[in-house]
Amino acid sequence: MGRGYGKAQIGTLVKRMRQGDVRALSRLISLLEQEGEEVSFLMETIAPYLGQAYSIGITGPPGAGKSTLVDKLTTHIRRLERTVGILAIDPTSPFSGGALLGDRIRMQQHYLDPGVFIRSMATKGDVGGLPRVAKDALKLLDAAGKDYVLIETVGVGQTELDIMETTDTTVVVFVPEGGDAIQTMKAGLMEIADIFVVNKADREGADRMVTEIQALVDMHHPHSWWRPPVLATQADRDIGVVELFTAIEDHRKALCKAGEFEARRQARRKKELIELVERHLRTLLLHHLQREGALGELVTRVERGEISPHRAADQILHDTQLIQHWFQEKV
Amino acid sequence: MGRGYGKAQIGTLVKRMRQGDVRALSRLISLLEQEGEEVSFLMETIAPYLGQAYSIGITGPPGAGKSTLVDKLTTHIRRLERTVGILAIDPTSPFSGGALLGDRIRMQQHYLDPGVFIRSMATKGDVGGLPRVAKDALKLLDAAGKDYVLIETVGVGQTELDIMETTDTTVVVFVPEGGDAIQTMKAGLMEIADIFVVNKADREGADRMVTEIQALVDMHHPHSWWRPPVLATQADRDIGVVELFTAIEDHRKALCKAGEFEARRQARRKKELIELVERHLRTLLLHHLQREGALGELVTRVERGEISPHRAADQILHDTQLIQHWFQEKV
Repeated sequence: MGRGYGKAQIGTLVKRMRQGDVRALSRLISLLEQEGEEVSFLMETIAPYLGQAYSIGITGPPGAGKSTLVDKLTTHIRRLERTVGILAIDPTSPFSGGALLGDRIRMQQHYLDPGVFIRSMATKGDVGGLPRVAKDALKLLDAAGKDYVLIETVGVGQTELDIMETTDTTVVVFVPEGGDAIQTMKAGLMEIADIFVVNKADREGADRMVTEIQALVDMHHPHSWWRPPVLATQADRDIGVVELFTAIEDHRKALCKAGEFEARRQARRKKELIELVERHLRTLLLHHLQREGALGELVTRVERGEISPHRAADQILHDTQLIQHWFQEKV
Repeated sequence: MGRGYGKAQIGTLVKRMRQGDVRALSRLISLLEQEGEEVSFLMETIAPYLGQAYSIGITGPPGAGKSTLVDKLTTHIRRLERTVGILAIDPTSPFSGGALLGDRIRMQQHYLDPGVFIRSMATKGDVGGLPRVAKDALKLLDAAGKDYVLIETVGVGQTELDIMETTDTTVVVFVPEGGDAIQTMKAGLMEIADIFVVNKADREGADRMVTEIQALVDMHHPHSWWRPPVLATQADRDIGVVELFTAIEDHRKALCKAGEFEARRQARRKKELIELVERHLRTLLLHHLQREGALGELVTRVERGEISPHRAADQILHDTQLIQHWFQEKV
């Protein structure tokens, strides 16, 4: 198994995690982040315990107050005596600023609460890796018995939106200043948003923004069984947070009633299978292209510009023997 | 070949494009955007004409004034009697606002100049497709004989940064207001930036921002042969634009002197080969997972949660016969 974790150890860690051991959960998430070959066994081990947690994605531009919303939602859910897991995803984009650390500090009150587990993850500019690790971490929190899992991310790129697709309810947060954002809001966002929030609603332009988003929702209405509500909140003053949680619960009920809850989860599992096979094929490919021999020579000719990458790709993909050979070897 | 373009027609269009026919160039870029199987033949056809254009990437957050910079740079390059191709990439992110259309309108003066070719491309939320199409479009502009190709993109995600990796010189543009962006500026950006620009330099905080970026450059200094300069510009008043072009030319000379010019282009060709093979493998995978039979049954079991995606992926990847069969078929 390598890197220090054998199957027996993973089994023990999962057992301890299931009994509420926070350190075991932390260690297993770290194991995910290493992206080693144990991940597959770990996911297999927790498979029987999945599907109980309800996952909520909170996304929006930097400075929209997402962390404060997550903080207040957590306080509310804890009052209902439910447990919470929080995954805070730092942005891939080098341009998306914001006082991330400052926001996180506000969450400190929850660090002492055993009913709340908080973990931050950085993207490291890795397109493929983060969504995979975040999705698997969501599953660990589910298997660990958390009633709700909140995923917070600056939705600046496809990577982050991809994570949002894995949550049961997705909340998209705006602030009145970001008026331009609404104008250029793409259909992609309308499709992932189950609930819209205009936070910092005491600021100028908030009412107009709510109206504008509502108009967009009316125009778009992607589902017959759910019309995304547009809520005004002031998270730092705890205004509108209970209403947001109620909207999340309403969405959950609507999902179940429409038969969408299970349909979405099925689509997600299939997507995950495709992603896993793709990642493996990619690893195989990179491994083999480093090789000596005919393939290495082809790569050198491409580098020198003697043959176009398109023609070389065609040659590689039509060499059935080569491909067959790849898969017979272990990487 | 399908979709109306045979090999002979593509050959004719390329010939006309090489003779300066703008409509032929436009039609060939549209052909790229359709992502059909003719693309491979087209790229093969233009391969002998590549490598003459110098490519410049202009990236930065929304509202940084990138389009104005591209506009003024173009005017300057035209004064030097060189031709220009411009690719304006619209952002993937649903959050990145900005008056894109307004910016583009400013470019109108160049639309009447036969020495300037302008094309906008939208990302449609497609992670893999855009960089591929944009990179191939860059090649078409090269083969069409443009002396300079400028690629403008809101650098909000990995997709856009990926495009920047394909340009000879990458210019990263900031504005004084985006002070937070500098603080959280990641190493990834330092590695792609060959020149930094603080635009709208008449605004408050511009000097401090230049100093801050300079300090970061001093700390990081990724190359011994090039230290990215930090320039202050006011593109709308045409201040600093000539200096920017001079810096671009300096970078070009430094690249050549260090032997990096050819090394970068070699690395790019290899990367392109890998991407092409990956994309094809992905297409094969999606095609085969839709199938009936044993594989379809496996997918159904994953969807139902009867078997974990990880275990199913392992099964698929270890079924050598299955894999072999995939590659023997035409998709």
